[in-house]
Amino acid sequence: MNYFSSDFKLGILGGGQLGKMMLYDTRKYDIYTCVIDPSPEAPSRLACNEFTVGDLLDYDTVVNFGKQVDVLTFEIENVNVDALETLEDEGVKVFPSSKTLRTIQNKATQKLFYRDHNIPTADFSRFAHPSEIQDAVDNGGLSYPFVWKSARFGYDGTGVKVVRRYTDLIDLPNVECIAEDLIPFKNELAVIVARNEKGDLKTYPVVEMEFHPEANQVEYVICPARIPDAIAKKAELVALKTAAAFKHVGLLAVEMFQTEDDEILVNEVAPRPHNSGHYSIEASYTSQFEQQLRCILGLPLGNTESKVAGVMVNLVGAEDYTGNVLYKNIEKIMAMEGVTPHIYGKKQTRPFRKMGHVTIVNKDIAVAREIAEKVKRTIEVISE
Amino acid sequence: MNYFSSDFKLGILGGGQLGKMMLYDTRKYDIYTCVIDPSPEAPSRLACNEFTVGDLLDYDTVVNFGKQVDVLTFEIENVNVDALETLEDEGVKVFPSSKTLRTIQNKATQKLFYRDHNIPTADFSRFAHPSEIQDAVDNGGLSYPFVWKSARFGYDGTGVKVVRRYTDLIDLPNVECIAEDLIPFKNELAVIVARNEKGDLKTYPVVEMEFHPEANQVEYVICPARIPDAIAKKAELVALKTAAAFKHVGLLAVEMFQTEDDEILVNEVAPRPHNSGHYSIEASYTSQFEQQLRCILGLPLGNTESKVAGVMVNLVGAEDYTGNVLYKNIEKIMAMEGVTPHIYGKKQTRPFRKMGHVTIVNKDIAVAREIAEKVKRTIEVISE
Repeated sequence: MNYFSSDFKLGILGGGQLGKMMLYDTRKYDIYTCVIDPSPEAPSRLACNEFTVGDLLDYDTVVNFGKQVDVLTFEIENVNVDALETLEDEGVKVFPSSKTLRTIQNKATQKLFYRDHNIPTADFSRFAHPSEIQDAVDNGGLSYPFVWKSARFGYDGTGVKVVRRYTDLIDLPNVECIAEDLIPFKNELAVIVARNEKGDLKTYPVVEMEFHPEANQVEYVICPARIPDAIAKKAELVALKTAAAFKHVGLLAVEMFQTEDDEILVNEVAPRPHNSGHYSIEASYTSQFEQQLRCILGLPLGNTESKVAGVMVNLVGAEDYTGNVLYKNIEKIMAMEGVTPHIYGKKQTRPFRKMGHVTIVNKDIAVAREIAEKVKRTIEVISE
Repeated sequence: MNYFSSDFKLGILGGGQLGKMMLYDTRKYDIYTCVIDPSPEAPSRLACNEFTVGDLLDYDTVVNFGKQVDVLTFEIENVNVDALETLEDEGVKVFPSSKTLRTIQNKATQKLFYRDHNIPTADFSRFAHPSEIQDAVDNGGLSYPFVWKSARFGYDGTGVKVVRRYTDLIDLPNVECIAEDLIPFKNELAVIVARNEKGDLKTYPVVEMEFHPEANQVEYVICPARIPDAIAKKAELVALKTAAAFKHVGLLAVEMFQTEDDEILVNEVAPRPHNSGHYSIEASYTSQFEQQLRCILGLPLGNTESKVAGVMVNLVGAEDYTGNVLYKNIEKIMAMEGVTPHIYGKKQTRPFRKMGHVTIVNKDIAVAREIAEKVKRTIEVISE
């Protein structure tokens, strides 16, 4: 198939910031794109060839959208996976596959997949309802502390809770869930694996999520991770094994814990470009977004090495501001060396909403890390 | 002014490949853009917020377009400069200025400007018509060989001709022109200067245009130029002096000759992102397109240094093909290390039409240069 001709159409489910950044590269290659998103104000509404407003969870909407394209991908996991399966049956190339997405969408299934494929992950138990958890604790099958996770679409802070005592269980939503061992870890690491249909595999360098010492929030994504080579090698192998087990086509971002004992445990995966790979736009020979296109279009994989070290800082809405967004001091950070802000184009800010990110590149990672700290102290995402 | 708010509008005259590549960065910063181009199929028609079809040489069209924006720029010199002056009078920020563009638009005026500002350039004479050239030759005021250039919108190959004998003069168009000394040169060099309204100045490294030994066509743009440091320094200083003389706001691409005697002579300038700076997207800390935005929006200038060495190859239509374009072997070049094709999105190819470019980056410039040669031998821009 000739991807560089106007007969070819790439469909993208979701028009958020990930889709928007992927469009830099579809424009670079002049690849025809159709994007669908529920919001008429989605960041991807520009730069694609056709933009449709529609519900990504509605079977008919997704099937009808997918029928008009040659290759279909998604930038968000929360889409109708039955529709993807139907489209695959009808000959549309869907990458990553419906099968992979179905496994990943449900955290219990995802964890079982790791267990079945001998991929190291924290021990866990699966429950249809949180009430069963209490029974398990009472029967001695589970003990505090543990991590409760809702099986479906639990994201950090909403579908995840550390349970230390009985009272922590009381307000949990009544949904399918897992209880996972609470792992004391030295580092949270991530590796993005790229794999195409032929099975060619490449990994990006291991990155490190540096946490705020008090707030326990990821503050910086650092590439390369400041860890010993042997640990990096181990993390890469676990990530490769994971992508190969899924027979994944596309990017797979594998988030891992480096435990106190230097074990590597898979925490969770994302079958798409990922926050932990944003640094790659400025730092890598091939950005994760270009790589995603290469993977799903069956093009040769690009070089995943870095030209320079990179640190990424997320721009989230400041706590006390809601309304029309204002990026205070953005000119000041742009005067700092190797600093590139990415503004996603969401018009309204609210506390902790992801509004953009900033990449800091430098030949010396320690210098990049220092500048990142200055960036973080300087810029503020507030409202008008 | 808050460029990152939706109240701000940037206008771009021209929607060709340069505008298209600038839109990567307006999207990155979420800057609201209005683009006007005579072709409804212009490469920039996507990725801007508003696209208008219109004649860039029509006074009223340009004035009406410019009135709706806060800052106006152009990606092509061939626009109505009277309209720009009117807009400046009405308070629109036009960068680069109408005055600079008026000087540059006419090659005779441009050359006089260099002479007036003591900027080294090849000697020349100015003529209202080619018939006057013959008179000058007859009177001994001019001798063969020399370079004939039409004063207005002569581009390489159309408005330039080496005149070695009387018969070369016969078919010249009857327009205002100059006759310039034919300079034997070792190298053709270029330096892109960035300057903002405050007068902050930065130069990109000197690049070298490598010519095909037989066809006498630029084959590769190489950054950094493979010349002694002293020559590079000299070229940078000439370029800086030129930009300062224009009190230029925006990018100024200064093309120069390194003569057999290691003199640096300005050949011509372009007040915009330039083919000689395309390598910067992949190789530099700040791409020339981002830098142009920084200049014209009064933002701090970005780092002009390179992360890695870069070589650029233009993708032009093969000689014997006209019609719907096909990029033969593009998958093959994408398998080579550090190779990024940029496809401008023109649907029709014709002999020598500029259809795209390819950047090759590598830590080692000699390796990049070798891969560039492979790229050039492999990819073909043909028709279906």
